[in-house]
Amino acid sequence: MSQQGVPMPKALARPAFSSRGERLIGQEMFRVLDRAQALERQGHRIYHLELGNPRIPPPVKILEAAINELQAKHVGYAPMAGLQELRTAVAERYASLIGKPIAPSQVVISPANMLIHQFLDITCNPGDRVVLFTPAFPSYWAAAAHLELEVMPVTLPSRDGFRLSRLSIDVALAAKPKAIIVNSANNPTGAVYEPAVLQELAARCGQAGIWLLSDETYADLTFDGSHVSLAAPQVGHVVAMSSFSKVLSIPGFRTGYALAHEAVVAKLALSNSTLYSCLPGFTQSGCIAGLSVLDAYAAEVRARNQRLIATCHDRLTQSGLLHGHHPEAGFYLFVDITGTGLDDMTFCRRLLEEQHTAVTPGRCFGEAYASHIRLAVCGLEEDVLEGVSRTIAFAQKLGGCRVQAA
Amino acid sequence: MSQQGVPMPKALARPAFSSRGERLIGQEMFRVLDRAQALERQGHRIYHLELGNPRIPPPVKILEAAINELQAKHVGYAPMAGLQELRTAVAERYASLIGKPIAPSQVVISPANMLIHQFLDITCNPGDRVVLFTPAFPSYWAAAAHLELEVMPVTLPSRDGFRLSRLSIDVALAAKPKAIIVNSANNPTGAVYEPAVLQELAARCGQAGIWLLSDETYADLTFDGSHVSLAAPQVGHVVAMSSFSKVLSIPGFRTGYALAHEAVVAKLALSNSTLYSCLPGFTQSGCIAGLSVLDAYAAEVRARNQRLIATCHDRLTQSGLLHGHHPEAGFYLFVDITGTGLDDMTFCRRLLEEQHTAVTPGRCFGEAYASHIRLAVCGLEEDVLEGVSRTIAFAQKLGGCRVQAA
Repeated sequence: MSQQGVPMPKALARPAFSSRGERLIGQEMFRVLDRAQALERQGHRIYHLELGNPRIPPPVKILEAAINELQAKHVGYAPMAGLQELRTAVAERYASLIGKPIAPSQVVISPANMLIHQFLDITCNPGDRVVLFTPAFPSYWAAAAHLELEVMPVTLPSRDGFRLSRLSIDVALAAKPKAIIVNSANNPTGAVYEPAVLQELAARCGQAGIWLLSDETYADLTFDGSHVSLAAPQVGHVVAMSSFSKVLSIPGFRTGYALAHEAVVAKLALSNSTLYSCLPGFTQSGCIAGLSVLDAYAAEVRARNQRLIATCHDRLTQSGLLHGHHPEAGFYLFVDITGTGLDDMTFCRRLLEEQHTAVTPGRCFGEAYASHIRLAVCGLEEDVLEGVSRTIAFAQKLGGCRVQAA
Repeated sequence: MSQQGVPMPKALARPAFSSRGERLIGQEMFRVLDRAQALERQGHRIYHLELGNPRIPPPVKILEAAINELQAKHVGYAPMAGLQELRTAVAERYASLIGKPIAPSQVVISPANMLIHQFLDITCNPGDRVVLFTPAFPSYWAAAAHLELEVMPVTLPSRDGFRLSRLSIDVALAAKPKAIIVNSANNPTGAVYEPAVLQELAARCGQAGIWLLSDETYADLTFDGSHVSLAAPQVGHVVAMSSFSKVLSIPGFRTGYALAHEAVVAKLALSNSTLYSCLPGFTQSGCIAGLSVLDAYAAEVRARNQRLIATCHDRLTQSGLLHGHHPEAGFYLFVDITGTGLDDMTFCRRLLEEQHTAVTPGRCFGEAYASHIRLAVCGLEEDVLEGVSRTIAFAQKLGGCRVQAA
């Protein structure tokens, strides 16, 4: 061997990516965000309706708690399953919600988006089937694609208000999946499912030996104040999860949690340790402070969201071109753009480039939804209304062109 | 179907975990930490030598920058590949280290432990072979196990100072792996590899179409101040990665980065988006501030580490029972405990329970190292010295028993 070393090869070919690598699709709204931020760097004012980013001040206590930890230089490692105090606080909150005791060992802390991936990772082998009730949150699709699972979409029709029905449960179980993900209150439709139907889904999954992930990220943002949780750590097959991002307006804290049987929580903690070791302690301290004021804060946010979403929904309806189901929770509008004559990708791209308004294409929620877009109406009120106005104006211009061309 | 709903099944059997789920092994030192913290909750004083947790004050600028962002309520989402300003700052630092231009688009931000997993995930299919030069950091083993890869350990003998040799490169390439991970400065041995040998490894991997991950987490903590980086974004097969945790004493910020070809960086950003959406912006702002003072801060930390590690190494050597290679970087001592007559797991368990001193079992770095333990000598000086004294005293008690029994 040469003592002078071996030269780097002239042909700079890259070895092949793995098949898992090739199947990474990410989340379209983060690509929209990237493009929107590139336009902002060029000096443009952009109206952001693409991400469910609350953009309202979080409870002051959260920021104070995180700042206190930083000032105390508490910047070391934390336990892999999350801070014991945070696990305890989450357990207490859900015990009071479901009226049954929950132990801290039945709670694990992890970013909510990660928990979706971790749930599918620990429960499903490549080729296994997972049921999504559609339209469904893009991260479910992205995680399932990356993990090489077969997604079986079960459509919840708009004529039923996008709600889960007993018929859709029958269809889901007939597919004999390894796992089912259910999401009420729903992103993107804002539908809230009936408690009895949700309970039936959980029970029938248990009888059939099917894993069930209940994504309850928006449950605290149901307009009527009800919060239905499927958390049931006494059974082995249900994992209930949520996030602090939406209800406490702190997506940048990247913190969520899951409640499940102790054996499942132990597995998820091991997944945390394998993937990323642990989360920051100071963000978790912020979440502990946030839980102590969650109910009062969430009530304010719900009232604000309900008012703003009603205004936006009215304006869309009055446009005569854009049609959306009226949500019962959250801050999304899932809007039918068929009347514009454009597909969702073209509509979103042109809306961003021409009107500087960022929204999410419908097909991110299932390929059947290329005639839809999702608006996240959760920023500053005047910005949201301006973004919605621009979306309507853009649609009307297109609709007008169609009429003229016809 | 009954309108009263279906009862939860009486038999609370849990569906099977996936094979990926069954293969999660996590990181032993986090299990040690959990047990140590349980003892602390019982009121015991514990000496922590298990995790590479710097436990010294980080640069004030880092904390100020993160606090400023929190006070400004900047708690929204960030770009999936990391803050543009942080990518730019990392690119500039490495361009000056390697003397070649690097673009921000050749840098991705992600937790370092996650990057190890992401690298193996996007490059290797289940069953593919990956070479680790051993002893090797537990997260490599944990990620490879979880991703169902075949690990081919290539031992770096202690008689060569645990350094990478041309012979070990020959052995590694003869195994025809899909990927190789190299880690200089090394955890756990503190060995620093010759630049020419590292360059040869990179070049020969390129010729053979083998992915190379260069984990440079401790490169800034080399005692002689040299920093050798294999960052080479102009080629397609090398991914260089590092962490802000160790060199800036902020493991709780959970932030690292990788430098690679733009196509690989784009894939890793997509992996970020799929797995966890994005990192907090305020921790990344802290890291930007940290980079501006890194050189001066790291020089102080290196001097401190070198002094403390020399003291600890002397004491171990004088004990006559514990033998360790003298590190050239970092803050770990990899110690041969053969003289005590105990295997590593028993030694570590008893040391924690009887002497309240937490250390890491050697087999976490490869199954050949059950006769070793790793000491992380990076806390407060008096705590480190007390932990080392207790370790020596415990070993001497065992050694004494052995002599008496013989």
